[in-house]
Amino acid sequence: MNIKISKRMSQPDFQGAFTADILKAAANPSLISFAGGLPNPVSFPVEEMEAATNKVLARDGVRALQYSGAQGYPPLIKRICERYKKIMDLDFSPKDIIITNGSQQALDMFSAVMIDPGDQIMVENPTYLCALQTFHLYYPEVLPIKLNEDGIDTDMLAETVKTQNPKFIYIIPNFQNPTGLTYSENVRQQMAEVLKGTDVLVLEDNPYGELRFSGEAGHSLHYFLGEQCVMLGTFSKIVSPGMRIGWIACKNREIFDKLLAYKTTMDLHTNIFCQMVLEQYLEDNDLDAHIERAKKIYGEKAEYMISCMEKYFPEGVTYTKPEGGMFIWVTLPEGIKAVDVQAEAIKEGVAVCAGDPFYENERGVRTMRINYSNSTNEAMDKGMKILGDVMKKMI
Amino acid sequence: MNIKISKRMSQPDFQGAFTADILKAAANPSLISFAGGLPNPVSFPVEEMEAATNKVLARDGVRALQYSGAQGYPPLIKRICERYKKIMDLDFSPKDIIITNGSQQALDMFSAVMIDPGDQIMVENPTYLCALQTFHLYYPEVLPIKLNEDGIDTDMLAETVKTQNPKFIYIIPNFQNPTGLTYSENVRQQMAEVLKGTDVLVLEDNPYGELRFSGEAGHSLHYFLGEQCVMLGTFSKIVSPGMRIGWIACKNREIFDKLLAYKTTMDLHTNIFCQMVLEQYLEDNDLDAHIERAKKIYGEKAEYMISCMEKYFPEGVTYTKPEGGMFIWVTLPEGIKAVDVQAEAIKEGVAVCAGDPFYENERGVRTMRINYSNSTNEAMDKGMKILGDVMKKMI
Repeated sequence: MNIKISKRMSQPDFQGAFTADILKAAANPSLISFAGGLPNPVSFPVEEMEAATNKVLARDGVRALQYSGAQGYPPLIKRICERYKKIMDLDFSPKDIIITNGSQQALDMFSAVMIDPGDQIMVENPTYLCALQTFHLYYPEVLPIKLNEDGIDTDMLAETVKTQNPKFIYIIPNFQNPTGLTYSENVRQQMAEVLKGTDVLVLEDNPYGELRFSGEAGHSLHYFLGEQCVMLGTFSKIVSPGMRIGWIACKNREIFDKLLAYKTTMDLHTNIFCQMVLEQYLEDNDLDAHIERAKKIYGEKAEYMISCMEKYFPEGVTYTKPEGGMFIWVTLPEGIKAVDVQAEAIKEGVAVCAGDPFYENERGVRTMRINYSNSTNEAMDKGMKILGDVMKKMI
Repeated sequence: MNIKISKRMSQPDFQGAFTADILKAAANPSLISFAGGLPNPVSFPVEEMEAATNKVLARDGVRALQYSGAQGYPPLIKRICERYKKIMDLDFSPKDIIITNGSQQALDMFSAVMIDPGDQIMVENPTYLCALQTFHLYYPEVLPIKLNEDGIDTDMLAETVKTQNPKFIYIIPNFQNPTGLTYSENVRQQMAEVLKGTDVLVLEDNPYGELRFSGEAGHSLHYFLGEQCVMLGTFSKIVSPGMRIGWIACKNREIFDKLLAYKTTMDLHTNIFCQMVLEQYLEDNDLDAHIERAKKIYGEKAEYMISCMEKYFPEGVTYTKPEGGMFIWVTLPEGIKAVDVQAEAIKEGVAVCAGDPFYENERGVRTMRINYSNSTNEAMDKGMKILGDVMKKMI
C-alpha cells in the first residue's frame, strides 16, 4: 500500500544518522566509550529507592497506581520550589511548575507552545544536540550565537536581537552540553541587560548546575529577568535518569496554561509511581550529601581525564577545564576534522563524539566532546592513549 | 512583554473548556461521580508491585535507574508479543513494539507521523474525547463515521472511502469509549473487506478488550488486514494507569521507524523503572487470574448500575448493556439535552458526562456517558435515583 508520512516527519531527523551511528557504537560493550553522557551508576541510590518504594506503596499504594493530575505530584512540586529558593535564590511557587518525562519532554512542550514555522529562535553555537532535534520538528529559523570561554557572545546576541526578530534563546549556562563551559557572572548580567525590555524569552536549561566541583555558581537569568526566563530542570543527573522526572518552571500564566494543556493532551500525566517514590526518597535522605558524593566522584574523574590528556595528547590539541558537569571540549589543530578522529578511534576501540551534530550549520569541525562521568580510571588511561595516538598519526 | 503563542496552541483546545469543567466537578470529593473513567482501585496489585520492585532493585537496580533505550525494555516487549498471540491470535514480533507513556502518547506519535494539515481522517461518531483532542493538534479534516449498535456503519465507511481521501480511521472496537458498544464479528469482517486493498490505515485502540465479562470476543482488524492495521495497547486498565505504560504495535517498517525517531526526540524513552517493575510483576503473578477478578467486579457493577437505571430512570430513556469495559451510554428522549441534565445533576451532587465532547460536530445531543467501574453500590443507587429525578423533572 501507499504510505504517506506527514511532511513534518518526512524530513530527515536533524543529524539523526550521526546520532544513530554513535548510539550503535556506544552500545558495543567491547568499546571504551567517552561518547555518551550517562551519570555514573556508582551515584545511584538503589537501596534508598527500594526503601522509598516500600514506604509509598504501604502508605499510599492506590494513589501511586491510579491516574493522577496533569501538573504533577504536589509534594514533589513543593520540594522543587524549595530547592530553587535554597540553591539559586529563585522564587517559584507550586503553580509555576509542571512535572515532565525528563526535561527532554519539556523542550518539546515549550517548542510546541512557542514555535510557528519560520519563527526565529537563538541557540548557543554549539548546543545540546537533542534540543536542536526537537526545535527542528517545528521548522524554526535557528540563529546560532557564538559561545566564548566565558559564555554567550553578548555583542553578537545584542546585534541579533536588534536586527532580527527571535522569539527566544535556549541556553545552558552551567557546564554546557557539549562544551562543559560556564557563563561568567559578568556575561550573565550583560545578557540580562541586552534582553531586558525586549520580547525575547530565555529558555534556561540546567541539568548539570548542581554538579559543581570547583569555582562559584553565577546567577540564573531568571534572577535578573523574572518571568521572561522559563527554566528547565531534571532529577536525571542528580538522582536517576531512568525514572524520567524533569520539570518546567514558568511564571508567565499565558505560557504556563498552554504548556499544561499540551502536556495533558500528549500523555495525560507523568508516571505518578516514580514521582511519589522520588518524593519519598527526598523526604528520607539528604540530597545535598548525595550530590556531594557525586561531585567528589566527578571532580576526581575530570581531574584524572585532564591528566591523561596532558600525558597523551599531542601538542596543539586544546581542551576546556570544567568546574562541574560531565564534559570536556577538545579542539584539534587546524586541518584535522573531528569526524576523522572519531572514525579512526572507533576502529581502535574508542568512541568519542565529534562536535558536528552540536552545531546548527558547521560541519567538518575541529571540536569534539569527551564524557568523563562514566569511565574507570583504567579506561580513561587506555582510551586517551589510543586517542592521542590516533591524533598523532593525523597531525 | 508581548508573548506570541504558536498558532497551533493558540486555537482553543478541542472541547477543552468542557473537560476542564468536568474534571473540576469530578475533583470535588463530596460529589457522586460517574463522569470519569478510572479503574477500580480494588483491582490494583499494590503488594505484588512492592514485591516486584524489591526484586528488580535487588537484581538490577542500576539498570532501573539509568538511561535506557527508546523502544522500551526488551523483556516487557516480548511479553506483549506473547500476549497478543495468546489472547488475540495476532503475530507481532519484538521489532514491531514501542513502549509509550500510556497509549495516549502513542496517539500523539501516530498523529505526528501521519497527519499533515488538511489531511482527512475518519473517527467513530462519537469517539474517545482525548483522541479527538490529540488529532486536532495536527489540523486534520475529521470525517465522523456513524456508530451503530453492532459497530461502525460499514455503508457509510465504504461511501466515505470511495468519495473522499482519508489517511486512516481510528476505532475502538471493544467496549468503545464513550458508548461501551462492541463491533460484531460481521461488522469487523465487512470493515476489513471495505478497507482491503485501499491506502486507508486502521488505528485500532484496545484499552478495554481484556475486560470482557460476557459474550465472545471478535477478531481484531489486524487479524484481517495485517500491517494495514496499527494497534494501540495499555496496561492502564488491567494493571495500573499510574505507571503510564502503554505501547504501539506497528508492522509497517516505514511508519515504525518514524514513530521511534519521534518518540526518541519527544522524551528519549519511557521510564525504565516502571517498565522493569511491571515486567517483574507479570513474571511473578498470574495476569489472567488478576484480570478475572477485575472482570468479576466490573460485571457485577455493570449489572447493578443497569438495575438502578431500570428502577429510577423514567420511560423513554434508553441505555446500552455492555459486555465489558467501563461505560454505559444513555440516550434521553427527544427534546432533552444531555448538557442540561448534566448541569442540573451537578447541582444535586451527581457528576455525569454529556455526550457532546465525544462528537466532532454535534452539540446539544441527547446522549451521555455513565461510568460504573469506580463506584460503590450505595453511590450507584443514590446517584441514579438523583439522576432519574432530574430527568423526570425535565421530561
